[in-house]
Amino acid sequence: MVNEMTQKIQIGKLAMLVASLTPDELEPFAASLEEVQYCQGKAGSMDIQKVIAAVETAAKRNGIISQDVYRETHALYHAILESLEGVMRGQLGVGNMMRTVGLRFAIVRGEPYDRKEEGDWIAVAFYGTIGAPVKGLEHETFGLGINHI
Amino acid sequence: MVNEMTQKIQIGKLAMLVASLTPDELEPFAASLEEVQYCQGKAGSMDIQKVIAAVETAAKRNGIISQDVYRETHALYHAILESLEGVMRGQLGVGNMMRTVGLRFAIVRGEPYDRKEEGDWIAVAFYGTIGAPVKGLEHETFGLGINHI
Amino acid sequence: MVNEMTQKIQIGKLAMLVASLTPDELEPFAASLEEVQYCQGKAGSMDIQKVIAAVETAAKRNGIISQDVYRETHALYHAILESLEGVMRGQLGVGNMMRTVGLRFAIVRGEPYDRKEEGDWIAVAFYGTIGAPVKGLEHETFGLGINHI
Amino acid sequence: MVNEMTQKIQIGKLAMLVASLTPDELEPFAASLEEVQYCQGKAGSMDIQKVIAAVETAAKRNGIISQDVYRETHALYHAILESLEGVMRGQLGVGNMMRTVGLRFAIVRGEPYDRKEEGDWIAVAFYGTIGAPVKGLEHETFGLGINHI
Amino acid sequence: MVNEMTQKIQIGKLAMLVASLTPDELEPFAASLEEVQYCQGKAGSMDIQKVIAAVETAAKRNGIISQDVYRETHALYHAILESLEGVMRGQLGVGNMMRTVGLRFAIVRGEPYDRKEEGDWIAVAFYGTIGAPVKGLEHETFGLGINHI
Amino acid sequence: MVNEMTQKIQIGKLAMLVASLTPDELEPFAASLEEVQYCQGKAGSMDIQKVIAAVETAAKRNGIISQDVYRETHALYHAILESLEGVMRGQLGVGNMMRTVGLRFAIVRGEPYDRKEEGDWIAVAFYGTIGAPVKGLEHETFGLGINHI
Repeated sequence: MVNEMTQKIQIGKLAMLVASLTPDELEPFAASLEEVQYCQGKAGSMDIQKVIAAVETAAKRNGIISQDVYRETHALYHAILESLEGVMRGQLGVGNMMRTVGLRFAIVRGEPYDRKEEGDWIAVAFYGTIGAPVKGLEHETFGLGINHI
Repeated sequence: MVNEMTQKIQIGKLAMLVASLTPDELEPFAASLEEVQYCQGKAGSMDIQKVIAAVETAAKRNGIISQDVYRETHALYHAILESLEGVMRGQLGVGNMMRTVGLRFAIVRGEPYDRKEEGDWIAVAFYGTIGAPVKGLEHETFGLGINHI
Repeated sequence: MVNEMTQKIQIGKLAMLVASLTPDELEPFAASLEEVQYCQGKAGSMDIQKVIAAVETAAKRNGIISQDVYRETHALYHAILESLEGVMRGQLGVGNMMRTVGLRFAIVRGEPYDRKEEGDWIAVAFYGTIGAPVKGLEHETFGLGINHI
Repeated sequence: MVNEMTQKIQIGKLAMLVASLTPDELEPFAASLEEVQYCQGKAGSMDIQKVIAAVETAAKRNGIISQDVYRETHALYHAILESLEGVMRGQLGVGNMMRTVGLRFAIVRGEPYDRKEEGDWIAVAFYGTIGAPVKGLEHETFGLGINHI
Repeated sequence: MVNEMTQKIQIGKLAMLVASLTPDELEPFAASLEEVQYCQGKAGSMDIQKVIAAVETAAKRNGIISQDVYRETHALYHAILESLEGVMRGQLGVGNMMRTVGLRFAIVRGEPYDRKEEGDWIAVAFYGTIGAPVKGLEHETFGLGINHI
Repeated sequence: MVNEMTQKIQIGKLAMLVASLTPDELEPFAASLEEVQYCQGKAGSMDIQKVIAAVETAAKRNGIISQDVYRETHALYHAILESLEGVMRGQLGVGNMMRTVGLRFAIVRGEPYDRKEEGDWIAVAFYGTIGAPVKGLEHETFGLGINHI
């Protein structure tokens, strides 16, 4: 399937790998990761507002988006929301009641397309466990959002 | 984060890897994959009904769920729907109009928990590109759904 | 329609009757109720988190699901969410602002299908009134969710 | 809970009973049903458009809403949509792919409140089975919608 | 398009204009506004519960709906919710985290249709800016809901 | 409220006015419209796929977005979807069954912010009537979506 793609860099796949692999597992992908800007972080709470803030702060601190330009924050914000749709699977509204054990996120920015005009795009991936508010009761969850920036 | 998990096998992560990695990239995960049952397939159309049918057919042909037991189909069906929420990011209703270039899926069945009573769980992952109905205009998309079976 | 059904026991219908009928009205269904495990309870608040907790607590206290097995809590949790979709009619996200006067719930566990392999299923029904945060202004609401367990 | 209600007639509960009970089971509720206007019908397909049309046609043929007044059709239409949210549990968009075996509906119109000014309200209930597009694989589903008319 | 409409008064368009135009800009529409009842107000917070309360209070204080009749509050409530769907664009559940700078609303009640039987309808429009919780980062948002009353 | 805005040009408001006003009513806004690029059109059907295609075609024919750059189509596409959320009010999935009488759209592209770095943004507005599939039964509907481009 990879061949069918018109993308030279798969920022979404890279974001998924950074969010879910251990450092050892990630090593074979080091070359691909050099072609993009990326960072990762953790969101310990499942207050959606705090999760969004954690991702935005990480993106700005690591220079992945500009501190001052609203359009970059706007692009990232919608990529986060799309990613959270996958995490919550249609139940964003009930999200705050959930307990999570270590939701890890990755932000990847790069030029996925050959044509220069397509410019930069951003991918946000979440991976972790989500569960009922009782310890030990959870399963994995994942989300990916992509936007032009 | 892996350490924090109470799961011995991460069927969701394995499903995502099977859905998105090339055979070469997948090799380091061969040992983990031996602990689960899994298969993969392709869904060339974005008619949601056909995508669901393709995954169900693959799961039955590969003996991952029983042909005859409704509760297994029911479990798989909801895992597929949750996974498609991630693929469509809240817009399942507009899905049929989308064009995709190679949506690949993976189904993984295994026992993620130490305790025997937790039994089998199933994970469904989609990875591919989704786009406007004009060739060459698409970006990556991902989805993961998990259910007890 | 009853004849068309392949189910020998209609756990969903029983859950709705237990949730909404008076003890007198429920009497003609006593024989059917002996074929299943069930309990009922009340959720006085419309904080969704508390409603879910109330149903889970009732289910465990009455031995309808196992205290210790995550897959049973997982099955119940999704049945509750599906039932709440009916109660809130697509607006789970705005649920916490609602006032209710007596939301009653019923949990029914049984074997709806003839075939032994289909095993146990669980139904959760809610019935009550839902309204604006002003006393006396409300109308009825109903929800039903079903899952394999 | 019945006592807590400020409604003298529970049109929602009556709609649920008409939609789901057999004629014999419904008999004890005959007195209550004399206080309202009601009808019932069947929707054999799960093309949402056809289901809505079937309910609207039944409501007009049985004189429950006026043929000519848009506001009555508008009130019924939103009651049907709310009821279908319960039937489909948040997945209206994927509805057309579902197979159903006998979805029965009931429409009840009456004056639920003591105060004359509150006027007429309408309740629409669906009850039946919903399933994958393979015969014999289905479980019960239910929905209730209520609106002022 | 205006000619194609079977409505003599476009309460939705009027609500949109009242919500978004300056007093000067609104002047040419003064004659149309004399045919309806209307009011406007501001909702400074984006706590959805408070926004709804602000609109309901304004509608009652200005005599646009009756203080005492539930069916009028019910009609207004659903018009507000429909309008907020436009404001939040499918993300009502994440609404509380948003910051807004001046969300203005308008409520218009009138008889849009020629036929007397169609009676009164109500329109609720919101217009303002919505943004991330950082000052100066926001864009416009708009919503319109209409219901029979 | 206008003063509170940090936007020098309100592309959303302009899109709403172009979509809903008659040429005479639009005249006072001629000066503002000279600061942006805009076009309008009609979508006669309510097949969502055709509505989206109609807007995209109009945007490209009128040179508002580039024919060849995917990121511009991607930006427009999400602005259309957000706008349709307002039109359908949370029921995109049932959209195809609706009949409309003249849904008019406007696309406005401009620089809403003082700071040069914020660049171009795009607004899509819909205005028209939406109804049951019976002639003469409809009410107004409105939607607005905004995105960076």
